[in-house]
Amino acid sequence: MSFLSSAAPKLAPWKILLVDDEPDVHDITKLTLSRFRLDGRGLAFQHAYSGAEAKEVLAREKDIALVFLDVVMEKEDSGLEVARWMRQDLDNQFTRIVLRTGQPGQAPEERVIVDYDINDYKEKTELDRTKLFTTTFAALRAYRDIMKVEQARRVQLSYREGLERVIAASSHLFQQRNLKDFASGLLQQVVALLRLEQSMLLRIKGASVITGESQYEVLAQIGDFNYQEFGPELIAQLDDARSNRISKLCGDTFVGYFPNSSGKSTLLVLKGVEEISEIDAQLLEVFSKGVAIAFDNILLNQEITDTQAELILRLGDVVESRSHEAGNHVRRMAQICHLLAHESGLSEDETAVLMHAAPMHDVGKIATPDAVLLKPGKLTPEEWEIMKQHPTVGLQILDGSQRPILRAAAVIAHQHHEKWDGSGYPQGLKGENIHPYARIVAVADVFDALCHARCYKEAWPIDKVVEHLREVAGHHLDPHYVKLLIQNIDKAVEINERWPG
Amino acid sequence: MSFLSSAAPKLAPWKILLVDDEPDVHDITKLTLSRFRLDGRGLAFQHAYSGAEAKEVLAREKDIALVFLDVVMEKEDSGLEVARWMRQDLDNQFTRIVLRTGQPGQAPEERVIVDYDINDYKEKTELDRTKLFTTTFAALRAYRDIMKVEQARRVQLSYREGLERVIAASSHLFQQRNLKDFASGLLQQVVALLRLEQSMLLRIKGASVITGESQYEVLAQIGDFNYQEFGPELIAQLDDARSNRISKLCGDTFVGYFPNSSGKSTLLVLKGVEEISEIDAQLLEVFSKGVAIAFDNILLNQEITDTQAELILRLGDVVESRSHEAGNHVRRMAQICHLLAHESGLSEDETAVLMHAAPMHDVGKIATPDAVLLKPGKLTPEEWEIMKQHPTVGLQILDGSQRPILRAAAVIAHQHHEKWDGSGYPQGLKGENIHPYARIVAVADVFDALCHARCYKEAWPIDKVVEHLREVAGHHLDPHYVKLLIQNIDKAVEINERWPG
Repeated sequence: MSFLSSAAPKLAPWKILLVDDEPDVHDITKLTLSRFRLDGRGLAFQHAYSGAEAKEVLAREKDIALVFLDVVMEKEDSGLEVARWMRQDLDNQFTRIVLRTGQPGQAPEERVIVDYDINDYKEKTELDRTKLFTTTFAALRAYRDIMKVEQARRVQLSYREGLERVIAASSHLFQQRNLKDFASGLLQQVVALLRLEQSMLLRIKGASVITGESQYEVLAQIGDFNYQEFGPELIAQLDDARSNRISKLCGDTFVGYFPNSSGKSTLLVLKGVEEISEIDAQLLEVFSKGVAIAFDNILLNQEITDTQAELILRLGDVVESRSHEAGNHVRRMAQICHLLAHESGLSEDETAVLMHAAPMHDVGKIATPDAVLLKPGKLTPEEWEIMKQHPTVGLQILDGSQRPILRAAAVIAHQHHEKWDGSGYPQGLKGENIHPYARIVAVADVFDALCHARCYKEAWPIDKVVEHLREVAGHHLDPHYVKLLIQNIDKAVEINERWPG
Repeated sequence: MSFLSSAAPKLAPWKILLVDDEPDVHDITKLTLSRFRLDGRGLAFQHAYSGAEAKEVLAREKDIALVFLDVVMEKEDSGLEVARWMRQDLDNQFTRIVLRTGQPGQAPEERVIVDYDINDYKEKTELDRTKLFTTTFAALRAYRDIMKVEQARRVQLSYREGLERVIAASSHLFQQRNLKDFASGLLQQVVALLRLEQSMLLRIKGASVITGESQYEVLAQIGDFNYQEFGPELIAQLDDARSNRISKLCGDTFVGYFPNSSGKSTLLVLKGVEEISEIDAQLLEVFSKGVAIAFDNILLNQEITDTQAELILRLGDVVESRSHEAGNHVRRMAQICHLLAHESGLSEDETAVLMHAAPMHDVGKIATPDAVLLKPGKLTPEEWEIMKQHPTVGLQILDGSQRPILRAAAVIAHQHHEKWDGSGYPQGLKGENIHPYARIVAVADVFDALCHARCYKEAWPIDKVVEHLREVAGHHLDPHYVKLLIQNIDKAVEINERWPG
């Protein structure tokens, strides 16, 4: 039992260890103090009849308030050795030590009290009923005073450690770059902070009370529970937290309300919270403030990133619209590029850059005259030369930027008509001299053209598309990326279905 | 003198208050204890000759370790009243109280020790030299033990409070959205954390050692000092922090090294740091970690925002390039729009949205056939009708987005050819029915066209431009924004000079 928890049941007795080799001394002491009370608490005695036994008890029982310590036992200075051992080896500075000696000559009061870190010195003869009583009273009071401060120190220490955990947890969250990582990171941190096993983060979807549809979207969860299984009680608790904008504990379920300035607030569900301590509740509050800020940052970031992605897609659309191509071409291409980049093991950052840059591959067509770009029939050799300028024009438009996305877009615009066997344009680059981004875009571009109807052709069935891709792999296209596409053809078909056109 | 600082000079004596109405008792006690030492510290005596005097001394001196307290003084229970008052009214739980009585019958030991929160009870007769010595020893030891824990508690408390300040400071920083606010916020927080008056935040510009030019750029500062004035010493300290990537204190100047993942590290200079305590140093370290993360977030945000702005400008360029217009047109327009929006009192957010959206105003021209868009001569009425479709096409391209910038761009594309008097196209909107963004863009567009050469006209001198703007104000253009532009014509001319074309 720790000091901290021993204080909780207020009437637990004070533990006193009697160390004396004469059993009579034990009996008399117990009897004399039998009706003793301090702050409403009685006494509980432990007994040791030698120095060795005393050490055993002291090593085991950490919350002994007071030791009455005989000096002469198995050795002439056994008691003194126990006192030294307690303070130095056991590092116990709290338990009060009252030395009791029957042979004062053996351990003179002044020397002993200077040399040993004891708290009182009594000759057994002077310990009448009153003196024993007041000595015990004074010693226990001193112990109580120290422990009161010690407990306050432990509260501060545990608060401080909690704050350090909160800071570490918040640091972790502030480093998250997207909502998904943020949400699962948040759960991990809360669960670690409160030492729980089940938790879930929900986002409020919007007002859909009338439809009866769930209003909560699961952002992340730890442990295998489904909030809908918990039925009306949990839903009521969620609705309550949401409308009153407060966090609340009901039974063993804590529902935390995390506001954020965008209005899309989040609810945290913690199961198995038997009892949140006051410190934990305060830490959770401090943490929640940080979470709200981190959440705002994530959403702001996401807003800017989404705007950027949409802008690029619309830029792609604008270009495609001049060629009267189907609207979703650049959206599908971006997704196919993402798929191939991911499967080929590119980093997340590179995959994102490629996906965002790909829709700009044909930007150079902006300068291609209508007469060439929109000609219904076959191009003359001269017209074809004009058409083939669009990669170089694209490079000119996008060149010279410091931004990773624009740099990627420039190389893609310039090289997406190069072919693996060197027969492409404008530079006639070959194999790995073509930038991987451009090789991926070429595969995605051909795949999308084959799968969809164009002014000059019908849409092909997927089997025929795969067959054709196998044929051109190693000639027109990089065989590695073609292989990856065919291995993941189901995902590619899904992309086609999601963005038809 | 506080408890905390009294511990620093290790040989300060233990303060003992002697309370007794008999001067002899004072003298004898002093004499008896004159050679007393505990942990190498002697004793310092305070004297009080009545209960009232004792209270005065105790109220004034907060670090008295021990009180020898007589019972019977001005009243029969003066000493007991002092003991009660100390614990209850003064709320002093630390000072040890040894009651000394000459008339034990007046205050029976057992009753007194139960009723009063005292630590020892002695009859004056039993206080021989040895007993006085051991009693003092035991009492001071108890005081020492409590104060040791109390001091540890205070360290934890002060660390905890420091962490709370760090958390508040970090929260503040994480809410900053741009580098400038971040930098000055950082300084304010550090200065508040460490209670300083001068500080400065520098960014490493890059390797320019050879040119002799300063390698440090001032991001923010508090107090009026210039780091260059401090000459070679400070510069050496900066260089040292930078190359060794560590924070260091030299004299009264602290140079903090704040790494961040972008490589553009930051140096913090704090002047007047006489001595940073261990706790402050630890707090600064905790804070620095948060700062590095917040800094990364700011830079990431800035990167995304800058990419977005550049993308839009390039989209604008692409469109303008089809009409063979001068390259910097959209850049200048964006700046003129920013100027007018700011001067007209639009919020910072709205001003930024307008500035980012303006370059897309002519996006609909992408669909205008070459034959019309690039026709050298005057358009026929039929061709003019085709030309006038570009605002509607622009709306179609940009319509339906949830993003503020794209929504603004859509309304600008649609309405930027409307005129204040209702004579514009495509809807013939009038006055304040035209969106303010579109009215501002119209002014900026006309201004830029007048100031620069086009295929059909020369560039006009600024006087003639202003004269023309005055003429069309209230007819073609919103007179309010024209007035603002003319009031700020110097700034507009500066914009023209910065982006010539």
